[in-house]
Amino acid sequence: MGFWGLEVKPGQPYPYQSDNVQRKLHITQATLGIGSSTKKSIVKCSVGEKSPILLCSLLPEKIESCPLNLEFEEDGLVSFSVIGPRSVHLSGFLEVNGRDSIGDDYES
Amino acid sequence: MGFWGLEVKPGQPYPYQSDNVQRKLHITQATLGIGSSTKKSIVKCSVGEKSPILLCSLLPEKIESCPLNLEFEEDGLVSFSVIGPRSVHLSGFLEVNGRDSIGDDYES
Amino acid sequence: MGFWGLEVKPGQPYPYQSDNVQRKLHITQATLGIGSSTKKSIVKCSVGEKSPILLCSLLPEKIESCPLNLEFEEDGLVSFSVIGPRSVHLSGFLEVNGRDSIGDDYES
Amino acid sequence: MGFWGLEVKPGQPYPYQSDNVQRKLHITQATLGIGSSTKKSIVKCSVGEKSPILLCSLLPEKIESCPLNLEFEEDGLVSFSVIGPRSVHLSGFLEVNGRDSIGDDYES
Amino acid sequence: MGFWGLEVKPGQPYPYQSDNVQRKLHITQATLGIGSSTKKSIVKCSVGEKSPILLCSLLPEKIESCPLNLEFEEDGLVSFSVIGPRSVHLSGFLEVNGRDSIGDDYES
Repeated sequence: MGFWGLEVKPGQPYPYQSDNVQRKLHITQATLGIGSSTKKSIVKCSVGEKSPILLCSLLPEKIESCPLNLEFEEDGLVSFSVIGPRSVHLSGFLEVNGRDSIGDDYES
Repeated sequence: MGFWGLEVKPGQPYPYQSDNVQRKLHITQATLGIGSSTKKSIVKCSVGEKSPILLCSLLPEKIESCPLNLEFEEDGLVSFSVIGPRSVHLSGFLEVNGRDSIGDDYES
Repeated sequence: MGFWGLEVKPGQPYPYQSDNVQRKLHITQATLGIGSSTKKSIVKCSVGEKSPILLCSLLPEKIESCPLNLEFEEDGLVSFSVIGPRSVHLSGFLEVNGRDSIGDDYES
Repeated sequence: MGFWGLEVKPGQPYPYQSDNVQRKLHITQATLGIGSSTKKSIVKCSVGEKSPILLCSLLPEKIESCPLNLEFEEDGLVSFSVIGPRSVHLSGFLEVNGRDSIGDDYES
Repeated sequence: MGFWGLEVKPGQPYPYQSDNVQRKLHITQATLGIGSSTKKSIVKCSVGEKSPILLCSLLPEKIESCPLNLEFEEDGLVSFSVIGPRSVHLSGFLEVNGRDSIGDDYES
C-alpha cells in the first residue's frame, strides 16, 4: 500500500516473485536512467515459461518517460530486463490483494 | 489475474476468443517490436462482423510505445493484426470478471 | 461490456445517442486513420446545446495516437466530428451503468 | 455522470465553484485550441489561497494534446487560466460524489 | 478529497510525510515550470531508506508534461527533488484512505 520502485540495469534480469507477496503490484511508469548514450532502452518482461514481451521503448532526448498500467499478482516468477545501454526506472505502487480501491473493513 | 502479453507479428491476424475465458482482458500498452524498418506499424482490431478499428500507430525512433485502455469481455471473436513491417507487443492484464478492483468474497 | 470503436470520417458529424443505451461509453483512444495528408486532424465533440469541445489533435508522422479518458452517459445527443483531412478511429469500451468495476450481484 | 468540457481562453481566469455541485469533476484531457501561433500554451490551476500549479504545457505542431487525471471536489473556488496565445480545451466527466465506479443502490 | 499540487524547485528535496495524513495521495501529472533553460529536468523520489527512483524526465520544447499514476500512503517520509535547472509542478488529488472510488456509507 504505497510506492514501489525498481531500477532495472542493463545486462541482468531482475526477478520479482509475485507469489511471495500478499500485495498486487501495479507498475505505472518507466523512466530512462541517467547516462550519455543516445541509443534506445527497451524494457522486457518474462513471466514463467511464456514468450518475453516488450513493455516500452525509451528514446533518449525524445521520449524518456512512458506511462504503463500493468498488474502482477499470482504470476509466479516475473523478470524484468533492459535491452540497451541505459537503465530504466520502473515505478508504481503495491496494494493489498483486491482491496486497494474499496474501503477495507478490518474494523467491521 | 495478472500479466497478459501478445506479440502481434505482421501478416496474420491473431484471434482472441473472449467468450472462452472467465476473465476480462485489459490491454494497456503497445510497444514496437525489434527491427530496422523505419516505417510505421499500426495495430488493427476486428470484433465479430464490425468494421475494423485502428488502435494505435507506432513510429520508429519517434513514438515506439503507446498507452492503451481497452477491455474485452463477451465480445466473441476478437482479432488483432498489424499493418506495417514490424511486430507490436501488446501487454496488459487479466481479471476475473467484474471482480478486479473490489475485495473478493470467496471466503465469506 | 466490451470493445467499442468508431471511425469518424471528415465532413460529417457522427451522432451517439447516449440515452438510448443502458451502458456507459468510455472512449479511451484516438488514432489517425490511414491516408497521405500531413495536415493535422482534430476530434471535436458536441453535447446537446453546449459549445463544442476539442478532444484531441493528431499530427501525422509525429503523434498519431492519443489516449483519452471520457465517459458518456445520460448526455442526450452527443456528436463527434473531425476537423482535418484524415479520419480518426475512436476506441474504448461499454459497461453496464455503474457496474463495471465492482462484482455484480445478479445472482445474489 | 457525463461529459464535461471547458474552453479556457487566454487572458482571463475561468472559475469553477466545486462546492456548488453535487458531483466530482474529473478532468482527463487538455487540447490546444485552433490558432496560428506557434508559441506554447500552459494551463494553470489555482485553488483557494494556495500557490498556482501548472497542469500541462502544449506545444503547437509537437504535442497538442495531453492526458490529465485530476479530481475536484469540495475544493472551494478553483480557477483555470492559460499562459500563452492560444486557448486550451479541457475535457472530462462529472460523477455523482463517490458513486461513479460502483453500482448505485437507489433501488435497494 | 480534491486537488493537490506541489512545485518542486531545483536544489532542495521536498518532504512529504505520508503518515501524518489520513488521505492517500495520488500524483497524476508532472509539468515543467517556466524558465528558459533547454536542459532536461528529472523528478526523483526517495522513500525511507530505499534507493531513489526517477519518476519522469521532462524535455523543454519537446515533452513538457508527463502523466503519472502514483500512490503514497503509509510510506513514511517521502521526498521529491528535481535534477536539472527548472522546477517541476506535480499535481494530483487526495482521497480519504481507501474510500475514493466507492460510495461512502457514513450515513448508513
